[in-house]
Amino acid sequence: MACQGQTDDRYWAFVGPFGGTTGATVLRSVLEQANKIGDPLAITLNFCAPLQHGAFDLDVREVRTNRSTQHWAVELSQKGAGIAVSASVVLAVRRESWSHQSAAAPDMPSPEDLLQLVQPRSVPWVDRYSFRFACGQPAGPNDQSKSARSARSEVWISDREPRPIDALSLVSMSDAFFGRIFLVRGLICPFGTVSMTVYFHVSANELLQEEGHAIFGVADAHVFHRSYADQTGELWSPNGRLLATTQQIAYFKL
Amino acid sequence: MACQGQTDDRYWAFVGPFGGTTGATVLRSVLEQANKIGDPLAITLNFCAPLQHGAFDLDVREVRTNRSTQHWAVELSQKGAGIAVSASVVLAVRRESWSHQSAAAPDMPSPEDLLQLVQPRSVPWVDRYSFRFACGQPAGPNDQSKSARSARSEVWISDREPRPIDALSLVSMSDAFFGRIFLVRGLICPFGTVSMTVYFHVSANELLQEEGHAIFGVADAHVFHRSYADQTGELWSPNGRLLATTQQIAYFKL
Repeated sequence: MACQGQTDDRYWAFVGPFGGTTGATVLRSVLEQANKIGDPLAITLNFCAPLQHGAFDLDVREVRTNRSTQHWAVELSQKGAGIAVSASVVLAVRRESWSHQSAAAPDMPSPEDLLQLVQPRSVPWVDRYSFRFACGQPAGPNDQSKSARSARSEVWISDREPRPIDALSLVSMSDAFFGRIFLVRGLICPFGTVSMTVYFHVSANELLQEEGHAIFGVADAHVFHRSYADQTGELWSPNGRLLATTQQIAYFKL
Repeated sequence: MACQGQTDDRYWAFVGPFGGTTGATVLRSVLEQANKIGDPLAITLNFCAPLQHGAFDLDVREVRTNRSTQHWAVELSQKGAGIAVSASVVLAVRRESWSHQSAAAPDMPSPEDLLQLVQPRSVPWVDRYSFRFACGQPAGPNDQSKSARSARSEVWISDREPRPIDALSLVSMSDAFFGRIFLVRGLICPFGTVSMTVYFHVSANELLQEEGHAIFGVADAHVFHRSYADQTGELWSPNGRLLATTQQIAYFKL
């Protein structure tokens, strides 16, 4: 079943809407399907071209349904402008099994002990979230050293208008870590996410039972090379449960 | 342009062909297109259903071509059996830029100092590679403790019949780390990769200039929960260059 939507200027980024909300919109277009089964397990978003202000169409196609998994393909396009996002979504009916969190939870300082990021007015989407950095806050424009600094950030992220954490917000927050290039070089340069994947590690019901409206995010990168850089991300609940992991590859011009 | 192929029994896994070679085949179907631009940047493979022995078709569709990136969608299917793999491939013309490897290379013991894994005869694909584990070798069937062990492996991987490392072998090797569940629990259980993504961090030309036919792989996992577990992987060249990173989410029954 096809879906329609339109961009929201409050979530605008540099040359198009913030990819996180676009990703959440794609996921929602699948979750709205009458014949969907299970909960989000994985989503991959390929950002093919910037969206323009205005309406868009989502073509939502069921690729295959198995006993406990379901595969979807979604293409987001605008009239006369071609495909802007090509995505795949995997849903799963998650059955009980042996459970083990092999990753150690990071130390999480109390958000009250951290300063809230003061937002640059030129990038609207940033103002839709509250960021409190424990480390790795993107530097201001006067801090331009050519030597590389750490690519790691640890940060509390919550919606400015409080909203329970669901799979949609996890997708959106997965793209809210700021380009690692801004951090390691201490400057803002042309940047855009090319492809992003999110894996969900809890069911929708388990997510509902988590308390609070914030996640503690850990972001890092491996390589910056020939105009592309990767980013890894972990989204932790306040009580030390890993809700989602994400990775993306992004373009930068420097 | 559509492509055809057929499975190879030498690369058989449990209930279908080894996902790594299927992924390499998908990538190759894009690289064979006359109008492709640039080198592989990202590939996501959604394994929808096991392939049967025999012929398959690849439907290869150009989604969007920009100045320096190109997006492709590939569906692999078998007659009468529906779609087995749904994939996206991003190619990029990689321009010179600032370069920085923020991830530290792991210590790599000389492969000659490590024992070669003795292959279980029941899983043919394993015999197509040489594995020399520095740590995290999957345990044998007599080592079944219910407590969890580390999910981390460090291992030299090379094709049994030596072959230069290219983007195709990086995709295949990205799926060659063995299920993390086998390692943390020390047993073999039903297991299957559901979705896998690989990011390439060097151009095809740079890859050609790398010496040797082996990569040093580092694999780990964050969470095992309700029948699904993730896996992260790094593929290093012998001289400490990060060639590719990968992540996957896999089903397990335990």
